[in-house]
Amino acid sequence: MSEWFETHDGIHDRVWQCLGRGVADGKSPARLPTFATVSRTGWPEARTVVLRRADRSEALVEVHTDLHSDKIESLRHSPRAALHVWQKTLSLQIRLQCDVTIRSGAEVAEIWAGVPDPSRQSYGITPAPGTPIVDALDYVKDPDPATFAVLTCRIVHIDAVHLGDRHRRAAYSRNGDWVGQWLVP
Amino acid sequence: MSEWFETHDGIHDRVWQCLGRGVADGKSPARLPTFATVSRTGWPEARTVVLRRADRSEALVEVHTDLHSDKIESLRHSPRAALHVWQKTLSLQIRLQCDVTIRSGAEVAEIWAGVPDPSRQSYGITPAPGTPIVDALDYVKDPDPATFAVLTCRIVHIDAVHLGDRHRRAAYSRNGDWVGQWLVP
Repeated sequence: MSEWFETHDGIHDRVWQCLGRGVADGKSPARLPTFATVSRTGWPEARTVVLRRADRSEALVEVHTDLHSDKIESLRHSPRAALHVWQKTLSLQIRLQCDVTIRSGAEVAEIWAGVPDPSRQSYGITPAPGTPIVDALDYVKDPDPATFAVLTCRIVHIDAVHLGDRHRRAAYSRNGDWVGQWLVP
Repeated sequence: MSEWFETHDGIHDRVWQCLGRGVADGKSPARLPTFATVSRTGWPEARTVVLRRADRSEALVEVHTDLHSDKIESLRHSPRAALHVWQKTLSLQIRLQCDVTIRSGAEVAEIWAGVPDPSRQSYGITPAPGTPIVDALDYVKDPDPATFAVLTCRIVHIDAVHLGDRHRRAAYSRNGDWVGQWLVP
């Protein structure tokens, strides 16, 4: 009986288990991935996001954001994101490279309907996120479905590293039908 | 008496405390920042690194890497990095934007001399990191100072967000002599 990190399938299964748990469990590390984009001026950017959906059959994950946030501006320019999770309990680093589609308005009305009221407070801030203000609290939250956006992240590549007595690194790609490939860690 | 997150200086101080603790304490969240770069093909990339130095007076941080790692290739093309730390205990997100200098060879011999033997195992893998291999363990570690690189990250911008009953976001830049500016979170 091999350990999960000794086979391609074992690692791939754990990656999706972690992502699924991130959506379901607010205390899971995969709940708060780091989301990296490239700005209009070519700068790498990284911030925490909340994982809202993980669908293995379509190989996609979703996060929600304000349509006026800086990541939207970056994604309009370069619609690619890298998501990063360090699953400490498994000593597993998960890296996803994704093509991102920004969805808003009528298209996401059904998703908005399912967003609980406290979470809605994150969408519809005036002035827009990132605006300089004199006092730290010079802003108003006014939940507005018009500023609610869903980032549908279609995974094209997964890179997973298990840190053990000896490290193991496996890569999977959409083009390669998610067949695992060992890489030097 | 105000809370630390109510003033520019209070937040700025905590940012540097966190970074300092990351270097000193292996269990601190800032020990393992996410390090984002832009690949030669324009993809955002993110991976965990170990924080090795944090110097407030020069406003720089340092990490160590293998000269053959993918981040070196990316940094040679685009010498900028974003570092991200989520300091859960303080509900503080720290984002750093940095100009990166890659240093290796004689220039870092003194730093190499101070790297303990177990850590040295991370520098000098054959084949090079990222190379496809048939079996997960088809690689050899042979510590080699010639492949040891120090990434000196000169911070140009700090963005810090405190998540509280009401969120607060402050930005600081080298150009602005690190004077704080509140932003809409």
